[in-house]
Amino acid sequence: MELIKPKTMPGVMELLPNEQIAFQNMLDVIRRGYERFGFLPLETPVMEYSNILLTKSGGETERQVYFVQSSGSLKQGRDPELAMRFDLTVPTARFVAEHERKLVFPFRRYQIQRVYRGETAQRGRFREFYQCDVDVIGKDKLSLHYDAEIPSVIYHVFSELNVGKFTIHINNRKLLSGFFAALGVEDPERQTLIMREVDKIDKRGRDYVVETLTGEHFGMEADKVHRIMDFIAMEAESNRAVLDRVAALGIDHPLFQTGLEELSQVVETIEALGVPESHLKLNLSIARGLDYYTGTVYETFLDDHLKIGSVCSGGRYENLAGYYTSSKLPGVGISIGATRLFYQLCAAGIIQAGKSTIQALVTQMDADLSKEYLNLTAELRQGGVNTILYAEKGKFGKQLRYADRAGIRFAVIMGRDELDQNLVTVKDLIASDQFQVPRDRAAAAILERIQSSN
Amino acid sequence: MELIKPKTMPGVMELLPNEQIAFQNMLDVIRRGYERFGFLPLETPVMEYSNILLTKSGGETERQVYFVQSSGSLKQGRDPELAMRFDLTVPTARFVAEHERKLVFPFRRYQIQRVYRGETAQRGRFREFYQCDVDVIGKDKLSLHYDAEIPSVIYHVFSELNVGKFTIHINNRKLLSGFFAALGVEDPERQTLIMREVDKIDKRGRDYVVETLTGEHFGMEADKVHRIMDFIAMEAESNRAVLDRVAALGIDHPLFQTGLEELSQVVETIEALGVPESHLKLNLSIARGLDYYTGTVYETFLDDHLKIGSVCSGGRYENLAGYYTSSKLPGVGISIGATRLFYQLCAAGIIQAGKSTIQALVTQMDADLSKEYLNLTAELRQGGVNTILYAEKGKFGKQLRYADRAGIRFAVIMGRDELDQNLVTVKDLIASDQFQVPRDRAAAAILERIQSSN
Repeated sequence: MELIKPKTMPGVMELLPNEQIAFQNMLDVIRRGYERFGFLPLETPVMEYSNILLTKSGGETERQVYFVQSSGSLKQGRDPELAMRFDLTVPTARFVAEHERKLVFPFRRYQIQRVYRGETAQRGRFREFYQCDVDVIGKDKLSLHYDAEIPSVIYHVFSELNVGKFTIHINNRKLLSGFFAALGVEDPERQTLIMREVDKIDKRGRDYVVETLTGEHFGMEADKVHRIMDFIAMEAESNRAVLDRVAALGIDHPLFQTGLEELSQVVETIEALGVPESHLKLNLSIARGLDYYTGTVYETFLDDHLKIGSVCSGGRYENLAGYYTSSKLPGVGISIGATRLFYQLCAAGIIQAGKSTIQALVTQMDADLSKEYLNLTAELRQGGVNTILYAEKGKFGKQLRYADRAGIRFAVIMGRDELDQNLVTVKDLIASDQFQVPRDRAAAAILERIQSSN
Repeated sequence: MELIKPKTMPGVMELLPNEQIAFQNMLDVIRRGYERFGFLPLETPVMEYSNILLTKSGGETERQVYFVQSSGSLKQGRDPELAMRFDLTVPTARFVAEHERKLVFPFRRYQIQRVYRGETAQRGRFREFYQCDVDVIGKDKLSLHYDAEIPSVIYHVFSELNVGKFTIHINNRKLLSGFFAALGVEDPERQTLIMREVDKIDKRGRDYVVETLTGEHFGMEADKVHRIMDFIAMEAESNRAVLDRVAALGIDHPLFQTGLEELSQVVETIEALGVPESHLKLNLSIARGLDYYTGTVYETFLDDHLKIGSVCSGGRYENLAGYYTSSKLPGVGISIGATRLFYQLCAAGIIQAGKSTIQALVTQMDADLSKEYLNLTAELRQGGVNTILYAEKGKFGKQLRYADRAGIRFAVIMGRDELDQNLVTVKDLIASDQFQVPRDRAAAAILERIQSSN
């Protein structure tokens, strides 16, 4: 029989077990964090009806969608009725609209699932990847309180992820939009186009941006361009001081004033929720696609790895599910792209695979005692230790090397003498020491060691 | 704008948050159990290349497959190159063959992911559903030890799932096949066809089966038919006694003898691994599709809900990945169909949704203290309690009703007097009592209550 070469499509992240354990650990930290802040779990099907999924899409989105057809439908030459979700926002919108009457608002949900994009494959771009979203969705209205909850959950999760110092950047889109409007640029689309040019300041320099915006295509006055660039670059010794400087500009456009008030209140609430100023930065340049977000916006950066870009972004939106319901459903949320984040943290050496979920290996020192080793294995499992028995034939040294290579921390050893005295020897391959313990205390002793080294 | 009716396709299980919590709890128990027994996590992409996925498939399987195409590929009128996995076995086979040299054998893996089948939609049948698999895969050979590990993990997981009394049924396919061969029925396909008829005994009765098998189509001697039916119905006061009775039949066909020896050894090892005889039943009638499994086979039944059928099945197979590698990879494993199981346990009233992952609601008794309530919320979260703040305006009674309706167990109350004395009142909505506690002890007190009622 001719063999088929086993391989996956490009653009997916498939991990070896010890890598998967590290990744699963990341997802678990995120999930525990989301639950700690009172978000409830939601899972939606990977497929949605195409007409529901693609309402929002322009051509750009549609090109990146995977369509799904059963073999029957395909043979009949029908158009695909189903497509795979490309984010978690649209399925959540559909879910909330569909079950509106059964949900308690504000509805706090988290969703940790894979999404799909038919991207051209290239390094670091994924066609299948995890998104980890939290959102709070209100009915008719939603208190600004929730705009402050979001950075507090980000702060908690990234602290727990243990990926070094990070900073949450926060802004309010109304402030930016009001500032533009006060300068006479009212059209949101024009605002977006200008912001897109302004964003190039880091890469191309200020002169380049001024030249573009004062040039033929944009035709802006140089004075206004400089005022925009000074505004978004505004910094001070504290977030409070930045807000004071913004207030001191004396711009009395109503949208600008609303933005300033919202941002002040949100920053104050974030502090009361325990996020230290060291991890929160008011950044007036953040816009995040001026079309979708309408108020508070967030980005999060790892201070020692700025090149990675924002690792957690989101914001406040006016209406979640306008395509599916006439109810007004304002919300605020963020998303962590966990697959890309994991990939980048590994590349940067911040995450290392290695530790197994298996905590103990029961060795077979004496082939005559095999039934005792089975019992011992069962006892350790019963006592809460993730355990395997070395069931193949092999010299004792080989058994220990197996544990070491597999990343299993404890080797449990019991010879004839120990059996008679009701003792076992536990070898700690990380601490490189070993100790004897009464057999019925072995599980507890191992768990204590694990506990105390966490 | 015309609204689009929000709905999912039929045949998917989408849950409301409190149902999802119950389901997630089930998946967590399964995962913890699999890890306790030393299985390592694996996740594979939802899509595979069609030519890799569909090697095994006859027409039956192929009809049930979902094919996937990006919009670009679709427009060009190409045939779909990708398809969605219909089980976890084929992706695991592909994975093991692809990464053979990087894996340590025996390779123990668990996989908890969704699979897809383009089934005709009907009640209780799912097009998208979770499978929770464990397998041990050996290289060239695999010790019978692992055939015994599998029932021990089933025993642990179903005990933890808390779904009432269950029984693991075990058999060895060689025993059955050897018995047929000793009767002169050597052809495996004919064996399968006969077994399929014999399986109807519960529904149609013994006479019906005898009539069919002695009839024109099968043309078997009545004596042989009765011997088969007596054999598979064999029972005794213990598993050991059944094995003795089987041995006493004096059938000296080599396959039969091997089956008997294997089964004896596996049953003995299962006992040494701590599975009580009350939960393990030697059932000589279990065949599980005579084509794939070649040795030990398992089925698991909930004693009080036999109608549900087997909730966890599997067995030993000769070679996992013959399509992708010339290495011989024997294995043994089982699968829990978690979506269907959850659906049926809910229908049978064994699982009830209700409890929230949110453990505490901080109420706002005094609007002047809102900043203190923010601090208190942060303190409880910091202390490890899943907490939300009631951030909307609302009378105190309404706040308590919210907690009750949302399934949140503890309401945390702090008035002006309590603030001054550094106290909070904790109302336990399940125990229907309340207690006062120093503010900095509130989180610990809540966690202790939760702990002690688990």
